[in-house]
Amino acid sequence: MAKRLGRGTIELEKKPNIIGNAAVVGKKEGEGPLAKEFDEVFEDITMGEDSWEKAESLLLKNAVKKALSKAAVNKDEVDAIFSGDLLNQCIGSSFGLRDFEIPFGGLFGACSTMALSLIMASLAIETGGFNCTVAATSSHFCSAEKQFRFPLEYGGQRTPTAQWTVTGSGAAVLKQTASSISPYIDKLHLGTIRDFDITDANNMGAAMAPAAAKTISDFLTDTKTAPSDYDLILTGDLGFVGSELLRQLLIRENHIDIKSVHNDCGMLIFDREQQDVHAGGSGCGCSASVLCSHIINSIRSGKYGKVLFVATGALMSSVSSLQGESIPGIAHAVLIKGGKA
Amino acid sequence: MAKRLGRGTIELEKKPNIIGNAAVVGKKEGEGPLAKEFDEVFEDITMGEDSWEKAESLLLKNAVKKALSKAAVNKDEVDAIFSGDLLNQCIGSSFGLRDFEIPFGGLFGACSTMALSLIMASLAIETGGFNCTVAATSSHFCSAEKQFRFPLEYGGQRTPTAQWTVTGSGAAVLKQTASSISPYIDKLHLGTIRDFDITDANNMGAAMAPAAAKTISDFLTDTKTAPSDYDLILTGDLGFVGSELLRQLLIRENHIDIKSVHNDCGMLIFDREQQDVHAGGSGCGCSASVLCSHIINSIRSGKYGKVLFVATGALMSSVSSLQGESIPGIAHAVLIKGGKA
Repeated sequence: MAKRLGRGTIELEKKPNIIGNAAVVGKKEGEGPLAKEFDEVFEDITMGEDSWEKAESLLLKNAVKKALSKAAVNKDEVDAIFSGDLLNQCIGSSFGLRDFEIPFGGLFGACSTMALSLIMASLAIETGGFNCTVAATSSHFCSAEKQFRFPLEYGGQRTPTAQWTVTGSGAAVLKQTASSISPYIDKLHLGTIRDFDITDANNMGAAMAPAAAKTISDFLTDTKTAPSDYDLILTGDLGFVGSELLRQLLIRENHIDIKSVHNDCGMLIFDREQQDVHAGGSGCGCSASVLCSHIINSIRSGKYGKVLFVATGALMSSVSSLQGESIPGIAHAVLIKGGKA
Repeated sequence: MAKRLGRGTIELEKKPNIIGNAAVVGKKEGEGPLAKEFDEVFEDITMGEDSWEKAESLLLKNAVKKALSKAAVNKDEVDAIFSGDLLNQCIGSSFGLRDFEIPFGGLFGACSTMALSLIMASLAIETGGFNCTVAATSSHFCSAEKQFRFPLEYGGQRTPTAQWTVTGSGAAVLKQTASSISPYIDKLHLGTIRDFDITDANNMGAAMAPAAAKTISDFLTDTKTAPSDYDLILTGDLGFVGSELLRQLLIRENHIDIKSVHNDCGMLIFDREQQDVHAGGSGCGCSASVLCSHIINSIRSGKYGKVLFVATGALMSSVSSLQGESIPGIAHAVLIKGGKA
């Protein structure tokens, strides 16, 4: 049985193992610093499909397929898949997963979805009623820009705080195995919505940083640990602006200094100097593709022993922004452990 | 520990009790057959807010508040709330729940959300790591029409198969108590996406019926039960057209006749003759407000002992429809039991 460590914070007894993981990305991501870690890189932004939305579904489909294949698990052995995305009514997931015929739990966590899906997939296994589950998510630069900002043809100027939505998808296959195989999910924390009245939809990092600060602070308190207990505290997609704000907030509000162990998927995926991405990467696919390639691979190889993965999401829509609403942020945390070399 | 009865079908050990439930609806719903069962009826379609989206958030907020109050639970005692809705990026839930400061798991299941949220809230409790959880969802006729169909001012003609999106919200508070208090969640089934190539966005019942048929058939098989073992098999919002298709499909494909125990929230909430709703009610708030008032109250009073609640969702968006895609359906099931008088 899981142990309640605090409100929304639990320690899993079954330690679901990540028995397979895969990341599939677009051309720009395939030219970045993590290029060699991805399982598949598409050269064409439509992936041969006739719309960007369908392209996003294909990214997800391929990521799930590859993760299952690497886990040596047939799709019929999967008891549940948890996924969601940024598109209206999460059509990236519904259409991407339609053909798998796996029981499906649809999620909406904006860019925090990879952590949310890992949490749901872990809880399902922890109950004992599900043997094997999959956590996944996706995003696509063009489908997101078109939906949230401007038509791409318009060629709008991006602000310095703007982040670049990652074209990519990540998937992880979880299973409770007889022996504890690295990497595994040890603890998790379901985050709380936090709204600091940020209204600039081109500064997502600032909108999400307060939620990340609360989640990290709550998790460290509930687990009675300090940043130095982790090899890496990895936020989802705060980017360069949001990451700096997070570090400052944690020092000012909680006297916690994470600088020596902190990194952010939005800072890792692109080369800031060479790739013109302004404040870094974002989108559900950002943390998903970084976690499900470079990070999990590094845990598996023994480079990292304890990674606190904190994916962050901005829970707004273009309608809420046009109606003058601020941007509520959320951050969910998953502690992934392995046998450090 | 939960028992795996089949793929996606589990029997809970902890039998989470529904210790509080509430339904808040709009004027039209308050004039229907279930009028006296609702906890709050708004006379004004904007609920005093300055947009329909904000009105929807208020419906959800009030339903959760009332459910907590009826359960005699303070919001600080809730370990997690699971919710989602039909609005782009689920802003009904994010903004409606923002002020509660409860750990939040965002969901997207379209009109199946009430069952999906009950499943997630139950799984969380079943792990042992969460003491008290809330399941909720909402919909609003005007915010849905505006987003999915036409501006209301256009006064578009509705087709005979069209359903009327319910303005309403339902919430249920779950807790594992020392003794088994009626009503409680006994078993659940996470549904699989099913797509029968329906492309008519004005015939949601037809798009969702195949998924409901699969879920009911799978659940009965996995639990080795027959329709006669239940006092009520209650589908979410198939309406009059979809319900008839469901019954026919189950007979043709599975030789299962549910007619004597089947009803549908979309048929229960409005008076077909008096209220001009064509094929019945729909929307996340339809099954949520019917379940969290009339049905749970009837279990509590001893009228029903075993209710199989099967909420159905159509996983499309206006973009997927415009791109020529068919409408994938999904249905999740929750078996709610009580002490029948």
